[in-house]
Amino acid sequence: MHTIFSEKHVLRDPQVEFDGGRLVPPWDSPARVEIVRRRIEEVRLGEILHPREHGLEPLLRIHTPDYLEFLATAHDAWHASGRSGEAIADVWPGRRMRGQPPRAIEGRLGYYTFSADTGIDAGTWDAATASVDVALTAAGRLLAGERAAFALCRPPGHHASRDLFGGYCFLNNAAIATQYMIDNGVSRAAILDVDFHHGNGTQDIFWERDDVLFASLHGDPRDAFPWFSGFADEIGAGPGEGYNLNIPLPPSTGFDTYAEALDHALSRIDDFGPDVLVVSLGVDIWEGDPLGFFDLESHELTEIGRRIARLARPTLFVMEGGYALETLGENVVNVLVGFEEGWPA
Amino acid sequence: MHTIFSEKHVLRDPQVEFDGGRLVPPWDSPARVEIVRRRIEEVRLGEILHPREHGLEPLLRIHTPDYLEFLATAHDAWHASGRSGEAIADVWPGRRMRGQPPRAIEGRLGYYTFSADTGIDAGTWDAATASVDVALTAAGRLLAGERAAFALCRPPGHHASRDLFGGYCFLNNAAIATQYMIDNGVSRAAILDVDFHHGNGTQDIFWERDDVLFASLHGDPRDAFPWFSGFADEIGAGPGEGYNLNIPLPPSTGFDTYAEALDHALSRIDDFGPDVLVVSLGVDIWEGDPLGFFDLESHELTEIGRRIARLARPTLFVMEGGYALETLGENVVNVLVGFEEGWPA
Repeated sequence: MHTIFSEKHVLRDPQVEFDGGRLVPPWDSPARVEIVRRRIEEVRLGEILHPREHGLEPLLRIHTPDYLEFLATAHDAWHASGRSGEAIADVWPGRRMRGQPPRAIEGRLGYYTFSADTGIDAGTWDAATASVDVALTAAGRLLAGERAAFALCRPPGHHASRDLFGGYCFLNNAAIATQYMIDNGVSRAAILDVDFHHGNGTQDIFWERDDVLFASLHGDPRDAFPWFSGFADEIGAGPGEGYNLNIPLPPSTGFDTYAEALDHALSRIDDFGPDVLVVSLGVDIWEGDPLGFFDLESHELTEIGRRIARLARPTLFVMEGGYALETLGENVVNVLVGFEEGWPA
Repeated sequence: MHTIFSEKHVLRDPQVEFDGGRLVPPWDSPARVEIVRRRIEEVRLGEILHPREHGLEPLLRIHTPDYLEFLATAHDAWHASGRSGEAIADVWPGRRMRGQPPRAIEGRLGYYTFSADTGIDAGTWDAATASVDVALTAAGRLLAGERAAFALCRPPGHHASRDLFGGYCFLNNAAIATQYMIDNGVSRAAILDVDFHHGNGTQDIFWERDDVLFASLHGDPRDAFPWFSGFADEIGAGPGEGYNLNIPLPPSTGFDTYAEALDHALSRIDDFGPDVLVVSLGVDIWEGDPLGFFDLESHELTEIGRRIARLARPTLFVMEGGYALETLGENVVNVLVGFEEGWPA
């Protein structure tokens, strides 16, 4: 399978992350993508290609114009206001408070995010739009008839909703790519989110849609980020009711439990009968990940790839999380290799 | 007039505040209260008395039981989870995300706050409950027939809603004292909030009530904290419709504009005909305050006190904000002295 990759991911290089009441080094570092790229080369998974620029139009199909304008200008506005470093929110609309964007950057930041773990640095916008181009270019391979492609995106996207950033995500690469394929002839798409953290942004974006099935396996939000999304009773609304499947899993979930949940999600996807499958691929499900609490071993990630392949649907893998640098390349590529192995002969 | 004061405010002594993407020394320091107390002694405003303990019952009239339980245990839970320092939120329920308290402290923090400027340290709960006792004891003086009392509260309260802390506030001293007076025979109460920042918590608490009129003059929330509350079209709902008056004012507001707005609020209060008046007294309206943008001089704060006195209602002053230490004592006491001077002969 081909991988799409852009060097522009390095433009996003935050120096701090606000976590546990302290400013710590960010978990989402440029090193992550380079590690995955090297592993792809090592195992000769396939060619690594550069993305094609797609412009703003596909972004506007998913995100609101005011949100995009905010993201593109936030860092400059932050510095113009006399602040330094990365733009990080410290106040937001709490319960029963009013959701409207203020004039000043401090208030606007809080309006457009749900977490202070994620700051906006000088290169965030350029890296995020390049990351979307990576996903769109990979989606283009599927539209051209290939059975799979890997979008090595960074920053990741699945926590970003139409008008909220957070959890290291700004633009929802998987959602934008999904919509792009629908806008180019695909009738039905399924998104399988195997990142350890619930893909709250993707869920929110397709909440009322019946042409996109969203299925997610993730750490129980009662115990894990993003805390306020990902419960089993969130099933979609309106025409989308029944097209959102959350399977929250408890701490120390091992492969038996995970595989059962995965098979359930895959079976639901198979019943749905999508023209394409988009996999939000986070490998923070690995047992040693600093931000996860599952007990999955590296070779079990290969098996996850195999099982996904059995659906035999054109599949777009989109990189999301995974923060254990020592195994990140191996774990990501294991899923992709498993997929290649598992594709029905 | 008597002042009620508790040394327990020093139990809250946070070392950091998350502001502008950095951890900075907190604006709300123990020194604030000591400065005001000394000025009261200097000008011999009146006796300074200790509060009487009132227990949890008056708090439960305003705040939810789960919120109080959270506040009382949050710092211990934070440290039990392996974290150190003050408990500060870094993720919260964004738009369309689910409002339910998670199990783990990191998620619970985000559920119960709207800002990361405010951490919970080891002494926060004891200081906050003592601060409520200060307000309740001062309210007791009014119930006993005195025409005014000053509750030298810290931490302040007006940003705290029934289940949200933030803006240095945890328990809404003014709201709890107001409800306490209503529970002890007062029929109608007005709250005049002259702190520079909108009293979003107090507004929220009495939003649907017609026995409590809330009137606030404050920096326009499009340009000022708390950003998402305090707009002129927020007038209350249900039976409370028309009993919430917000007067947002622009940067560089001077006394002419301010006095006109104040007279409007006082006139509305006079029409309402309250048995008691509660003044949320923040002096961050002073021209040099680091957290405000009004242009009011110290002697003009005396005039504010005089005008409030002309209502000739039993009046409870409750300390809120004010962060310019060099003039804090003078500015607070100016309002109180103005009130004494202005009381109709």
